[in-house]
Amino acid sequence: MLKTNERLDQLIKEDLSIIQNDEVFAFSTDALLLAHFVKPIRRGRIMDLCSGNGVIPLVLSHKVDVPIEGIEIQPLLVDMAQRSITYNGLDARIDVREMDLKRVSQEYLPSQYDIVTCNPPYFRENQDFQHLKEAHRIARHEVLCTLDDCILSSRHLLKQGGKLYMVHRADRLVDCLISMRQGGIEPKVIWQIYSRPDKPAAVTVVIEATKGGKPDCKVMPPFYIYNVDGSYSSDMQKVYYG
Amino acid sequence: MLKTNERLDQLIKEDLSIIQNDEVFAFSTDALLLAHFVKPIRRGRIMDLCSGNGVIPLVLSHKVDVPIEGIEIQPLLVDMAQRSITYNGLDARIDVREMDLKRVSQEYLPSQYDIVTCNPPYFRENQDFQHLKEAHRIARHEVLCTLDDCILSSRHLLKQGGKLYMVHRADRLVDCLISMRQGGIEPKVIWQIYSRPDKPAAVTVVIEATKGGKPDCKVMPPFYIYNVDGSYSSDMQKVYYG
Repeated sequence: MLKTNERLDQLIKEDLSIIQNDEVFAFSTDALLLAHFVKPIRRGRIMDLCSGNGVIPLVLSHKVDVPIEGIEIQPLLVDMAQRSITYNGLDARIDVREMDLKRVSQEYLPSQYDIVTCNPPYFRENQDFQHLKEAHRIARHEVLCTLDDCILSSRHLLKQGGKLYMVHRADRLVDCLISMRQGGIEPKVIWQIYSRPDKPAAVTVVIEATKGGKPDCKVMPPFYIYNVDGSYSSDMQKVYYG
Repeated sequence: MLKTNERLDQLIKEDLSIIQNDEVFAFSTDALLLAHFVKPIRRGRIMDLCSGNGVIPLVLSHKVDVPIEGIEIQPLLVDMAQRSITYNGLDARIDVREMDLKRVSQEYLPSQYDIVTCNPPYFRENQDFQHLKEAHRIARHEVLCTLDDCILSSRHLLKQGGKLYMVHRADRLVDCLISMRQGGIEPKVIWQIYSRPDKPAAVTVVIEATKGGKPDCKVMPPFYIYNVDGSYSSDMQKVYYG
């Protein structure tokens, strides 16, 4: 089942396997953190944008029983995602599709989803990235889709009152919040992810935003990945091991 | 020197006295936190908007040697501020003036200030406030000036590259960041103030923003006011006692 340069990694808490390929794409902790903060739903539909190798749909399939879809623009990654889904016997529950998310308003009826998750490319296109392989460039830089594209697609997909969960670099917090409000998806909960209690600035933020929500956000307690001694924090152990 | 219902409180670290009046206005911890996060400058000018009883100019006069001005719309508070300034012998260094900050573009030359500080009214005008006394209503609710008014005045006053420091309720973080960016004052550093490490959401945020700055913000480590046992944290002791 594995192709050249691929390996099979384990999602321990979910007891699932996932195909990774460092030459093309391997998920980061941020994807796990995003899935961690999603509040489970009992009914409805979930869409994951910028799905990569399908890590977020796989993790969410352990948390919820509803159908989960994903959209990914890179065919190599869609292929990896689909083989991981089949390997785990989840074809009936997860569907990852090759598509440019800028086309969702043509391809999908509006307001059909209860949750949209998105771990978008982090870097502005003009930031230095010439040294990267193309697959990494597309996954990490706003080459084929921008933050605003993700928000506009989310707005189209989400029901009124539906929730967008987005993870991004902390230094783009302002960009995220502004894009969300301008797109009519109001930021409601912000989690800052710090490397360690003794390190300065946050590295990552996870934002929950509600389509049509009223202004007023909650800034949650800090989330630390590591303890001061370099071991995983108890919060992070929950993300990895449950 | 004191008038009816007034008392003289001490700013311990600064060894200064300040006139307070619970019927009219008494400063909150937020004002001290704002002043705490201001990075001192050696040259230039500082303006404090929504100056109240002058607490921020008084605290800043201990941190910097540059001239400090303040604008406050309520004559009763300007009177309290002026008497506190005189009582502390700071008339040559601090000048608090009665004025509607919406008039700064008519009254002041543009781009003359290196730092603007602002502890604005926190609540939207439409929130319930009929039970409050008028002075409290004006100080706490956006009756006479809105967040956008504060930002627009700050933009007029600040030099290119000058810094705005604003404190606000955490639930209005998104409003602040959006108003700042729209006003051309880019949020650069965010401090979240939590009551205690074991309490959920942040209560207050302090934001440093740079006029004409590039996007990219730092989300700083959490600041706790109390320890879990209810005593002041060592960070807060520094704010109060130095």
